[in-house]
Amino acid sequence: MSKNVLLLPGDGIGPEIVTEARKVLENVNAKFGLGLELSEAKVGGSAIDATGKPLPEETLTACKAADAILLGAVGGPKWDTNPDFAIRPEKGLLGIRSELELFGNLRPAILYPQLAHASTLKEEVVSGLDILIVRELTGGIYFGKPRGVREKEGGIREGYNTYVYDENEIRRIGRVAFEAARARNKKLCSVDKANVLEVTVLWREIMEELKAEYPDVELSHMYVDNAAMQLVRAPKQFDVIVTGNMFGDILSDAAAMLTGSIGMLPSASLDKNGKGMYEPCHGSAPDIAGQGKANPLATILSAAMMLRYSLDQGEAADAIEQAVSKVLDQGLRTPDILSAGMRQVSTSEMGDAVVAAL
Amino acid sequence: MSKNVLLLPGDGIGPEIVTEARKVLENVNAKFGLGLELSEAKVGGSAIDATGKPLPEETLTACKAADAILLGAVGGPKWDTNPDFAIRPEKGLLGIRSELELFGNLRPAILYPQLAHASTLKEEVVSGLDILIVRELTGGIYFGKPRGVREKEGGIREGYNTYVYDENEIRRIGRVAFEAARARNKKLCSVDKANVLEVTVLWREIMEELKAEYPDVELSHMYVDNAAMQLVRAPKQFDVIVTGNMFGDILSDAAAMLTGSIGMLPSASLDKNGKGMYEPCHGSAPDIAGQGKANPLATILSAAMMLRYSLDQGEAADAIEQAVSKVLDQGLRTPDILSAGMRQVSTSEMGDAVVAAL
Ligand SMILES: CC(C)[C@H](C(=O)O)[C@@H](O)C(=O)O
Ligand SMILES: CC(C)[C@H](C(=O)O)[C@@H](O)C(=O)O
Repeated sequence: MSKNVLLLPGDGIGPEIVTEARKVLENVNAKFGLGLELSEAKVGGSAIDATGKPLPEETLTACKAADAILLGAVGGPKWDTNPDFAIRPEKGLLGIRSELELFGNLRPAILYPQLAHASTLKEEVVSGLDILIVRELTGGIYFGKPRGVREKEGGIREGYNTYVYDENEIRRIGRVAFEAARARNKKLCSVDKANVLEVTVLWREIMEELKAEYPDVELSHMYVDNAAMQLVRAPKQFDVIVTGNMFGDILSDAAAMLTGSIGMLPSASLDKNGKGMYEPCHGSAPDIAGQGKANPLATILSAAMMLRYSLDQGEAADAIEQAVSKVLDQGLRTPDILSAGMRQVSTSEMGDAVVAAL
Repeated sequence: MSKNVLLLPGDGIGPEIVTEARKVLENVNAKFGLGLELSEAKVGGSAIDATGKPLPEETLTACKAADAILLGAVGGPKWDTNPDFAIRPEKGLLGIRSELELFGNLRPAILYPQLAHASTLKEEVVSGLDILIVRELTGGIYFGKPRGVREKEGGIREGYNTYVYDENEIRRIGRVAFEAARARNKKLCSVDKANVLEVTVLWREIMEELKAEYPDVELSHMYVDNAAMQLVRAPKQFDVIVTGNMFGDILSDAAAMLTGSIGMLPSASLDKNGKGMYEPCHGSAPDIAGQGKANPLATILSAAMMLRYSLDQGEAADAIEQAVSKVLDQGLRTPDILSAGMRQVSTSEMGDAVVAAL
């Protein structure tokens, strides 16, 4: 009974880090007899270069057919100036999220004890940090219509986007978040701007409604500006945060950076059946692409998350996570997490070390 | 030749902190012969309680007639559950911003050397921090229409807001930011989400256009998620940041919190002639209202900013800022900025100390 895993290297450092994750997957595949069938497809800028489209038809078909997807990253300055907004690398990523209805984005921000020094925050503020941000991923202002640039009277151009959620969309991401909180420390903070935006008034209302289904979970609400502040001031006050697509984009990046090791953080984007796409929290880092400087661990840990959540292979996932912990204990570091006394390694040396530790 | 200064205490700690700023203003008024005429009006929750409206007609008239406005803060849980969205304290604040066309919001994030320890970030990351966030304040998703909550087929409720900017709105805030950068370190970073939102594609385009008028200013662009990350990672890379209303709300709060002393940060909201409303960056802190714990220094420094920018009284402004620096040197601290070896004082003791130092 084989499982199809689709690898989408993407752009920038994407190919390098996915190569390392592939090594690791092939190793556990053999060792644990997982029956994984790995294949690759193009998405983002590399797909534009090859086919003219950020999400070619055959990639979308492969995504739909796959049991799980592992993505590197998309985007880069090379494609940023394309005047046709539909032909941007990001549209490939957004297209997969939307077409596969991967509405539930789980972004953990965890401080690795071995990397405590890497945070720009004081140790007492972040030591032991373990937050989960649940971000809605297929709605909100990312996908709302109408959208575009139009001319008003006098030929004045005006850009516009629509921030929209219906109660069903809010309810389904709310349930993901309440369930996640239930499995953790039972504290859920819903982030909105309900003092200004009507769409988030509805958001808050639905979260309040859901509370009745999860009496064991403590629900609180916070305005997004305050949440950005509290993440800097006292991040450990949070357990699970749930928010919309745009606020989630901003807050999850801030939260990830609190750990000082965004090169270590995996993420999952799930549909209603638990099928998912897994990717590192960091971006495509075009400035260091091809130099062997990228940290492959977030992608390797994303592969572990994939094994656990979409492929029901918890044992193999544990093994990968332990191997990562072991290479950190051995003092191996890519440049992004390097500190005094540690040994600097390249992207592929790091991947090899994880395989050796397995 | 007298000048009318309107004080709007507002809600929560607003009245306490404005009382202290008033003491300071009265003192410099007498000392420097400024000819200021101080008056007060109600806004926000306290105006709702008194008149049923967050921005009573007479307050708006007084705002229009004033030469400058000093606001405490608005909002609190008491009014948060009002089902009528138009009767919320925040609508009073938003109404003044909009009616007076105070589109240019200047939010400095400065680390006071005396309070370096107060930051949750490591000293080397934030020492000497001095960023200015220029936030567009009368457009974007805060004011965009259509907006509301409606029913779709099947009675499903849907909330919606509109994120909209025209090129003139972008150009005028862009000029404010370029001018500010020119007067500082000549680096301007424009923050958008141009890889996803069309409205910010136009934003980026207009900022690029303006560059030709300011060849001495170095313009860069950053996505909002990355900006949130970079503020945590290496905030000193920034000089001036310019962004829209919603992103500015989030990023300016995060930036303010980097300093660890949000109770110290003033802000200005200016119209095209330099008339302005001045207010502390922090909120109404209802949890500590009436307890003498609030830090009045952000409001006092806002009064100084008002004297400098709207009333052309730079000398009096300097005197206030020096007095604030002096009380910090004396070791006086409200609870929010207290540290070992310093003397804890109440809101009014802090105000008195500034007056004494003048
Ligand atoms: C690349 C971009 C479209 C994407 C987003 O904004 O969702 C990224 O920032 C992310 O967070 O996954
Ligand atoms: C009170 C609220 C409406 C306001 C805003 O969102 O603009 C506040 O957060 C601010 O930043 O001044």
